[in-house]
Amino acid sequence: MSYGQVFNLLKEKNLKNWLLYTKHDFVNLLSSDSLEEKYFLNYLIQDYLFLIQFSKAWSLAVLKSDTLEEMKISANTVNDLINFEMELHIKLCGSYNISKNDLESANEENENIAYTRYVLELGYSGDFLDLLSALAPCILGYGEIGMNGKNLKIKTPMYQKWIDTYSSDEYQDVCKNVANLIDQAFLLRLGSDYVNTYKWNKVNKIFNKATLLEIDFWNMALK
Amino acid sequence: MSYGQVFNLLKEKNLKNWLLYTKHDFVNLLSSDSLEEKYFLNYLIQDYLFLIQFSKAWSLAVLKSDTLEEMKISANTVNDLINFEMELHIKLCGSYNISKNDLESANEENENIAYTRYVLELGYSGDFLDLLSALAPCILGYGEIGMNGKNLKIKTPMYQKWIDTYSSDEYQDVCKNVANLIDQAFLLRLGSDYVNTYKWNKVNKIFNKATLLEIDFWNMALK
Amino acid sequence: MSYGQVFNLLKEKNLKNWLLYTKHDFVNLLSSDSLEEKYFLNYLIQDYLFLIQFSKAWSLAVLKSDTLEEMKISANTVNDLINFEMELHIKLCGSYNISKNDLESANEENENIAYTRYVLELGYSGDFLDLLSALAPCILGYGEIGMNGKNLKIKTPMYQKWIDTYSSDEYQDVCKNVANLIDQAFLLRLGSDYVNTYKWNKVNKIFNKATLLEIDFWNMALK
Amino acid sequence: MSYGQVFNLLKEKNLKNWLLYTKHDFVNLLSSDSLEEKYFLNYLIQDYLFLIQFSKAWSLAVLKSDTLEEMKISANTVNDLINFEMELHIKLCGSYNISKNDLESANEENENIAYTRYVLELGYSGDFLDLLSALAPCILGYGEIGMNGKNLKIKTPMYQKWIDTYSSDEYQDVCKNVANLIDQAFLLRLGSDYVNTYKWNKVNKIFNKATLLEIDFWNMALK
Repeated sequence: MSYGQVFNLLKEKNLKNWLLYTKHDFVNLLSSDSLEEKYFLNYLIQDYLFLIQFSKAWSLAVLKSDTLEEMKISANTVNDLINFEMELHIKLCGSYNISKNDLESANEENENIAYTRYVLELGYSGDFLDLLSALAPCILGYGEIGMNGKNLKIKTPMYQKWIDTYSSDEYQDVCKNVANLIDQAFLLRLGSDYVNTYKWNKVNKIFNKATLLEIDFWNMALK
Repeated sequence: MSYGQVFNLLKEKNLKNWLLYTKHDFVNLLSSDSLEEKYFLNYLIQDYLFLIQFSKAWSLAVLKSDTLEEMKISANTVNDLINFEMELHIKLCGSYNISKNDLESANEENENIAYTRYVLELGYSGDFLDLLSALAPCILGYGEIGMNGKNLKIKTPMYQKWIDTYSSDEYQDVCKNVANLIDQAFLLRLGSDYVNTYKWNKVNKIFNKATLLEIDFWNMALK
Repeated sequence: MSYGQVFNLLKEKNLKNWLLYTKHDFVNLLSSDSLEEKYFLNYLIQDYLFLIQFSKAWSLAVLKSDTLEEMKISANTVNDLINFEMELHIKLCGSYNISKNDLESANEENENIAYTRYVLELGYSGDFLDLLSALAPCILGYGEIGMNGKNLKIKTPMYQKWIDTYSSDEYQDVCKNVANLIDQAFLLRLGSDYVNTYKWNKVNKIFNKATLLEIDFWNMALK
Repeated sequence: MSYGQVFNLLKEKNLKNWLLYTKHDFVNLLSSDSLEEKYFLNYLIQDYLFLIQFSKAWSLAVLKSDTLEEMKISANTVNDLINFEMELHIKLCGSYNISKNDLESANEENENIAYTRYVLELGYSGDFLDLLSALAPCILGYGEIGMNGKNLKIKTPMYQKWIDTYSSDEYQDVCKNVANLIDQAFLLRLGSDYVNTYKWNKVNKIFNKATLLEIDFWNMALK
């Protein structure tokens, strides 16, 4: 499994935090079927609120695009998030008797605010590369987590379903499209020697910060 | 034909300019099959560039939404524009031997810049109601122009196709969804007495300015 | 001491959290001269990074203004922050042998990111009233904290200087100008019955959230 | 007279349009004391409306800054525009019996909208270099126009005053600060070989488009 050249370089440079994120206790507990339900529900509710803001951040990617192709992939991702992933959350929550109303009136935790507003603000203040570097840890990290758990058999149906979603061909295709979008966007704007640019230093910091905010998001769920 | 209460009120208050726009010489010449091809091509090329910016403006509507329903309709409109209306333009232009490359390297006329940047900047600086009021004249005006020409038989196939597009059930459905989005958005934010608010005065000015910029867009095509 | 009608109403509706913020342990410890220096330094460094983002948020207020008067007060506040308050922080830190370089390379804590990006993102996505409601707790809360400590004699010179800054006539004048800006902005946009609007409900949530993020900022300093 | 390396390169590459702008009939007529007063008043009124938007664009420069120094120069420019140049316009207009009210209720011409919204939208969607390249033609072009007319003696006092303003040491200092800001910003982000980057091509287009929109602004005044 590989999600493109730029992502691999960003991940390698921030590997310690990357593994703290993708192999976080929350993920390990879920994968070994030992996650208490209340923590999973914490997560599900906050993740629904997260997805609202994350869809908005991907809408900013449409605005920061330089080519029609970039606009299309970004707009398709907005659609996947709003019409597919958020609907899935509503259904999953429904099976726990958490209504759409409950979801929308839930309190947004500070760790959730920190992550989503960091990405959104960067989407407004930064350029396409800044924004993609802040969006990558979530999209592609979940792809990795899904693949890491691909062959697991988890008794709790909801946990199995969660892993299945992110290891599915559909989700992996989203990851590949985004990875390709990122590689092309860097090449177009910075040329093939992009690792020797001011921007490269900046996007590494952004990627690392977004990864730290992902870790805090898991921590929040386990509180 | 009616596109909702808010739109009707905005239109009534700015009726003179509204008619200068929807019954502009460009439209009359096209409808009576007397439009010189070069003017139609001017229009088509600029309109392609317009749609890129207009899709971006609708992406801002996702960001300025307060409800999931508002986000969905806005995101669907982005998709309609990028994956449907822009593809149609590329095909139409192709039949005149104007390539996608020609389209993308065409010079953006100042009248085009004025209109698109006015709407986009308002989308950034303004709120959801400001933005919708700037987007309405284009979306709903073309719906009206389409319906005004619904029973016409125009010899030039491209002109007939253009009218057919905007009088089609698909496009009229987009108009109805947008009209409904506007009505609901005003009610939610301003209550039923919205005509007696500071905002109402502001959105009237915006609607009227966007209408004037539409008129200038037709003028540009006929130059 | 009173900072205008709108602020008083917002404060009253969120009084419990307001007091948790303005009478936070950090403030009490500082006022009673029992704050460990390391906590004060934590705070000073993070507050410097905070002020960079906060100046940017006030720059957004210039963009969201509807009148020249609103633009002027907002621009003056940007100037006060950049040319006066940030310089003060650099000097204060200098007296602890923390260089400007140390400040600028310091790690931005997640609680700091949460607060600043929440305000900035709201400044981009929201309107003038949304933004002012997010900016008010910091500006006016520090004004209150300053006045609460006005007659204290604190041995630690830096703590005394800190209190003196926010109880000074200069800072209190900033507070009065901002309070007046807020009152006028609400009146202009919502009329005198603003408490019975959709917006009023929204700005209360914003004001309360920003207050909670202030509390988390103090908590961070004491970690 | 020289306003830095980046500006000189941008100007050289777009020299034909640059001269159409800085040696426009409007400027020539004013300099030779043959400009009809009504055209000057057209210009003054539209330029007042222009400055409101231009101050907002410079506020975006604060938001897009990467260093404190960049923030300071940008914020100072906002202040110069709001507290100095706009006040000058109000006074100049006052001497023609055009009140501040007249100015603020004047209709914003489409050419004015085109230019200001082009710059502002770029300030939102683009990065610091994009924005500076859109802001440069106005700030530095007026500096050149001022210096070109430095030794002229014009009978009409207002025309003399207008030239004097832009040839004054104060205004030339603003130009030098902005020129230096631009040079440093390009070096920091793109390195010394910035002419061989994707961005260089982009900013040339932006600089040229802003220059064309300046030409249209003069044309508008002479209508």
